Amino acid sequence: MCRFVAYQGHPVVIADLLYRPRHSLVHQSHHSEEFSLTFNADGFGVGFYVGADPTPCVMRATGPAWSNRSLASLSEKLFSERIFAHVRAASPGLAVQATNCHPFWHDRFMFMHNGGIEGFRKAKRRLQNALSDAAWELIEGSTDSEHAFALFMDEIGGAAARPTTGELRAALVRTLARLREIVAAAGASDAMACNFAVTDGRSTVVTRYAHAINREPASLYYSAGSMYVCVDEDGDMRPPEGPRHGAVIVASEPLTRNTEDWQPVPANHSVAIAPDGSLALEPIEI
Amino acid sequence: MCRFVAYQGHPVVIADLLYRPRHSLVHQSHHSEEFSLTFNADGFGVGFYVGADPTPCVMRATGPAWSNRSLASLSEKLFSERIFAHVRAASPGLAVQATNCHPFWHDRFMFMHNGGIEGFRKAKRRLQNALSDAAWELIEGSTDSEHAFALFMDEIGGAAARPTTGELRAALVRTLARLREIVAAAGASDAMACNFAVTDGRSTVVTRYAHAINREPASLYYSAGSMYVCVDEDGDMRPPEGPRHGAVIVASEPLTRNTEDWQPVPANHSVAIAPDGSLALEPIEI
Amino acid sequence: MCRFVAYQGHPVVIADLLYRPRHSLVHQSHHSEEFSLTFNADGFGVGFYVGADPTPCVMRATGPAWSNRSLASLSEKLFSERIFAHVRAASPGLAVQATNCHPFWHDRFMFMHNGGIEGFRKAKRRLQNALSDAAWELIEGSTDSEHAFALFMDEIGGAAARPTTGELRAALVRTLARLREIVAAAGASDAMACNFAVTDGRSTVVTRYAHAINREPASLYYSAGSMYVCVDEDGDMRPPEGPRHGAVIVASEPLTRNTEDWQPVPANHSVAIAPDGSLALEPIEI
Amino acid sequence: MCRFVAYQGHPVVIADLLYRPRHSLVHQSHHSEEFSLTFNADGFGVGFYVGADPTPCVMRATGPAWSNRSLASLSEKLFSERIFAHVRAASPGLAVQATNCHPFWHDRFMFMHNGGIEGFRKAKRRLQNALSDAAWELIEGSTDSEHAFALFMDEIGGAAARPTTGELRAALVRTLARLREIVAAAGASDAMACNFAVTDGRSTVVTRYAHAINREPASLYYSAGSMYVCVDEDGDMRPPEGPRHGAVIVASEPLTRNTEDWQPVPANHSVAIAPDGSLALEPIEI
Repeated sequence: MCRFVAYQGHPVVIADLLYRPRHSLVHQSHHSEEFSLTFNADGFGVGFYVGADPTPCVMRATGPAWSNRSLASLSEKLFSERIFAHVRAASPGLAVQATNCHPFWHDRFMFMHNGGIEGFRKAKRRLQNALSDAAWELIEGSTDSEHAFALFMDEIGGAAARPTTGELRAALVRTLARLREIVAAAGASDAMACNFAVTDGRSTVVTRYAHAINREPASLYYSAGSMYVCVDEDGDMRPPEGPRHGAVIVASEPLTRNTEDWQPVPANHSVAIAPDGSLALEPIEI
Repeated sequence: MCRFVAYQGHPVVIADLLYRPRHSLVHQSHHSEEFSLTFNADGFGVGFYVGADPTPCVMRATGPAWSNRSLASLSEKLFSERIFAHVRAASPGLAVQATNCHPFWHDRFMFMHNGGIEGFRKAKRRLQNALSDAAWELIEGSTDSEHAFALFMDEIGGAAARPTTGELRAALVRTLARLREIVAAAGASDAMACNFAVTDGRSTVVTRYAHAINREPASLYYSAGSMYVCVDEDGDMRPPEGPRHGAVIVASEPLTRNTEDWQPVPANHSVAIAPDGSLALEPIEI
Repeated sequence: MCRFVAYQGHPVVIADLLYRPRHSLVHQSHHSEEFSLTFNADGFGVGFYVGADPTPCVMRATGPAWSNRSLASLSEKLFSERIFAHVRAASPGLAVQATNCHPFWHDRFMFMHNGGIEGFRKAKRRLQNALSDAAWELIEGSTDSEHAFALFMDEIGGAAARPTTGELRAALVRTLARLREIVAAAGASDAMACNFAVTDGRSTVVTRYAHAINREPASLYYSAGSMYVCVDEDGDMRPPEGPRHGAVIVASEPLTRNTEDWQPVPANHSVAIAPDGSLALEPIEI
Repeated sequence: MCRFVAYQGHPVVIADLLYRPRHSLVHQSHHSEEFSLTFNADGFGVGFYVGADPTPCVMRATGPAWSNRSLASLSEKLFSERIFAHVRAASPGLAVQATNCHPFWHDRFMFMHNGGIEGFRKAKRRLQNALSDAAWELIEGSTDSEHAFALFMDEIGGAAARPTTGELRAALVRTLARLREIVAAAGASDAMACNFAVTDGRSTVVTRYAHAINREPASLYYSAGSMYVCVDEDGDMRPPEGPRHGAVIVASEPLTRNTEDWQPVPANHSVAIAPDGSLALEPIEI
């Protein structure tokens, strides 16, 4: 499994998510607290949009995030309004290589996954057969996550799609539904833990979802307010003013110790952030 | 040896130096034309300043630049007014590791080297003994280049220095002189090829220098004008308007095919670019 | 493209193929002479059998072979009677990662490739559809070469096969024929350069094959004799005594300067080495 | 800190130490039990002697051991009578690069370290000044451990030394004493945790040592008997027959669940294994 963080709002320096707060994503990479495996050392990735450029900039590499000095230096200097970052704990047997690191991306879209699809190995060929040529050709690595991303690209209608927030969410929920159908049709276990995050550079949707497993979905929290400010080790989310948020963080674990800033996402719910910063929490019904 | 490029001027996207032009730095990494070794595959680095931030952002990694997709993605999206980039061909016996990749940097300063110091191995301990504690502690890797950078940090007066362009150049020339003294005092060969590039984020100075070798110093060119524009594969330097330049590129080999845009730096000369874009070519007298 | 070497015979230390001779495989990795690209820096691999163990030991890594000290150390100490080694120059667009490095292996079989399949991208999905589940599941990376290996595993009859030398050769030739059929059926160019090497740990077969390209297949040589001895930089193949050879090397380029030791493999021919060291050169008829 | 294992005795396959037993070194790399940090993911190394060759073969790489398939493949096939293996958790600020991975080696000697020297940063220059030129030139990386190894090489008398087991132990104990002297002379903290392991390919000496820290030295165990056999997940040390042992394992944590097989090394003691397999446990007196 893995840990991730998604940010949407006023420009923040990447380090305010990855390094500075007490329980930053890089801290989670070696001291995860809400997951049976405490470390996520099998590669990492960070993707973000620069100015008005509609397609993201993505850095992915193998090795632990905590010792990568290029990541530290870039994070310290670069600002963005839309940031995805991920630290990976590889599923057994899956290669540690950059093409297996998240976020996956294509054109305007970025995608990341925390969890696992139990029947993946058995259903993998059927999953590929279910893809359009365009989506199939996106697959470069060997993870269940990237296969889910390819399914999503089909559900959203391909790279040319310009979805509303609702359409983005609907495509992500259909991706979950199709995943279940396909693994079941393959005679594989349909147990899965699928915290997915997707963005088209305007909206962001994150799911906290599990099916047929005997525990809660992987942990997921959000923090929303007018502004996110990180001073020294203490990140602070300023209270919201009205329904639109200047800053929304969705993260596998709270980044800061201000626990009142963080709301758990209920099991089998999605968080959707519209371009204007309004936020919707909805149950996932499949 | 290696190949490098330094840029100072109006903001350009990094890819306009590293990827887009016909003979970009990444092209030089696999098809160098003015150097006996045609490839530079032992790591790379790119450093640049972001907005008004006085200290640079640096990405360095091992492996060939040409296959690093993070470098490609970041270069495509990030703009800067001060860029250093380097592709390395390691000297025999020196480890391929990120701490041996250029640019080296400390506080506001960045430094890179194309060439070699023949007597380095024999003089290495004496070189270290010549350093202040502060400069000695900067050394993380094992290259002659990083030792030259440490000497430079002593000559400039440490991290707190805020040199004029002239002071920056003078410190770099003194670095060359001290290098020669120290290797000679160690009884080592004082043959050296030292194309050095240094910047404090405001001025840039590059040397084309060799001593006691039976050939020209490594190739070095500059291109200066009002604006650098890169369309498709063709980079174009717009003619200068007056003594101040909107854009100056100094590179081991011309990046573009517009040969009239590129002037060779004469042997044992330096190019100095002031914060206002004025450019001075001067002989190095040691 | 790439460069490779295959060895079968009395035990030799791996360095006698990879490092010691004047034009060793590692030398070819940076100074290839018979190929338009002079360097092969996108990863490497070495596989060999230890004693009576029927399955090989394989080390693969990214980065240039020439700077990998673990490869140097292991090569200096380890002996084997069956050695495959490969240095990679990645086809444009294909990721540099260990799962794309040769030799590919499964159970007793090892496989490597020097060349390219022009229509691969267009025919990739059809190629995968042509595979049995068992062969399809072997694919971990994204190269044309690994897809050819998977086809071969189907042609040989799967991991349990214990082929004679003739059966091994026949399966490799059928692999070439099926490759041509499948890319043609996909409407893709059937131009291909396929120097393949395969072993089951007992026999070795290597092809020098090209189809529909306007030049010779990639270079391929063999050297066969009673004993291969490498002293300093000079490798020496002792003359054969009778039809069985104590040592056979098949390599993209001659490793040693004793040019009379090396015979070019004619275009569209295979070299097959039987367990007893007898050698057969045969045309490939498809 | 780190975890390590040293083996001396009848030939064993490396996987019997690194992979097969329930709490193998690779298992310790992600589920260390006797150390505050449960993972050791900042590189690894394995060194071993092959047959009568007096100098070892060493493989070191960055990244977690658990995902390195070359390590898995080599470990599965290669046997040795003298094996050192190490998984690293880098001290904060020290680069993750192969030259910082253990074992360090020179000529016949291998050396590894689990622990840390608190005053290292402050005393580093003085430590280097204390070295002979020959020892100083060995240093390629930036760890306290490699500096300790260089000190040891001076204490043993250089690469040409052919020490008895007692001389090997004495040199290692003097290394500890000099470390304390030098850091104290530098005005640095002399707190240190120094589980060192050294071998010349004939004898092996391992220390469990700490000075001026408020806790026990890092954990260390040994298991000695007539034969070490690993079947499935259960390693088994056959009872000793007389004072000479056919197999001795010294490891940071017991590899197997047969707890009666494992003796803790008392704090500030050394274990010395003579070429004939006899074993001596002695207090370290400094």
